[in-house]
Amino acid sequence: MIELEPVATVRGGRGEAMDDDWDRETAVIELDSRFDGDALAGLAEFSHAEIIFHFDRVAADRVETGARHPRGRADWPLVGIFAQRGKNRPNRLGVSVCAIVAVEGRRIHVRGLDAVDGTPVIDIKPVLREFLPRGEIRQPDWAGQLMVDYWTRQA
Amino acid sequence: MIELEPVATVRGGRGEAMDDDWDRETAVIELDSRFDGDALAGLAEFSHAEIIFHFDRVAADRVETGARHPRGRADWPLVGIFAQRGKNRPNRLGVSVCAIVAVEGRRIHVRGLDAVDGTPVIDIKPVLREFLPRGEIRQPDWAGQLMVDYWTRQA
Repeated sequence: MIELEPVATVRGGRGEAMDDDWDRETAVIELDSRFDGDALAGLAEFSHAEIIFHFDRVAADRVETGARHPRGRADWPLVGIFAQRGKNRPNRLGVSVCAIVAVEGRRIHVRGLDAVDGTPVIDIKPVLREFLPRGEIRQPDWAGQLMVDYWTRQA
Repeated sequence: MIELEPVATVRGGRGEAMDDDWDRETAVIELDSRFDGDALAGLAEFSHAEIIFHFDRVAADRVETGARHPRGRADWPLVGIFAQRGKNRPNRLGVSVCAIVAVEGRRIHVRGLDAVDGTPVIDIKPVLREFLPRGEIRQPDWAGQLMVDYWTRQA
């Protein structure tokens, strides 16, 4: 087993998880008091951060270890839990990229983080262009359909 | 504290961490025996996977909690541990995107994973185009310099 201690907490944003429209949301990621602002020095020079967080509201007995239909949609294929990004997954980790609005002391103001108020954060990494996928991205149709309204709902 | 159980292990690839030239490497990510191939159903339809792993060779007393020069380079700025992606970080988590070469049963054949043989894997997610950064990416000069040879060394 690997023991992790949260390094920060999400403050603000949504109180409840909803499926779509996350780019409207702003929130603050507040570092734990064992850190000082030095741990964030230079982060404001990056436009985006990658946040690794714990889906702490997912009950252990709701974790899927095999295959399921994404969002329960029977018209989409049955896919393995490691071939989708849903929250009911082993270890209940989320990894998501958000925009950095400002960094002040131990607080990072962000936009478009798809984690709810109070979520424990276990790592924060800057987004480097060079860490994006190398080569062309291919994905199945259901994935694009699922994401249509995820960040910003179209009118 | 959050307790995680590895879901898979990196087999093959490099025996030792080195800084550069990772896109030459192929490896296998082997799911733990508590899973079956269903957990990977449909993953082969994606070109890339995001692997969350544990830098288990980093000793706890080598973890940086404030700021340091990336790669110890005094000519680069002193930046916070959460403004860089180095391995000596709180919770010692790595997040990296690699190419999916093939999926067979409980094994994912990958290329360009920057984790060494034996590394514990704690999550596997498919790369969706829509989860890439929204908007233009900005990063400081040192970050681009650090990454010049990271994936493929130029002649």
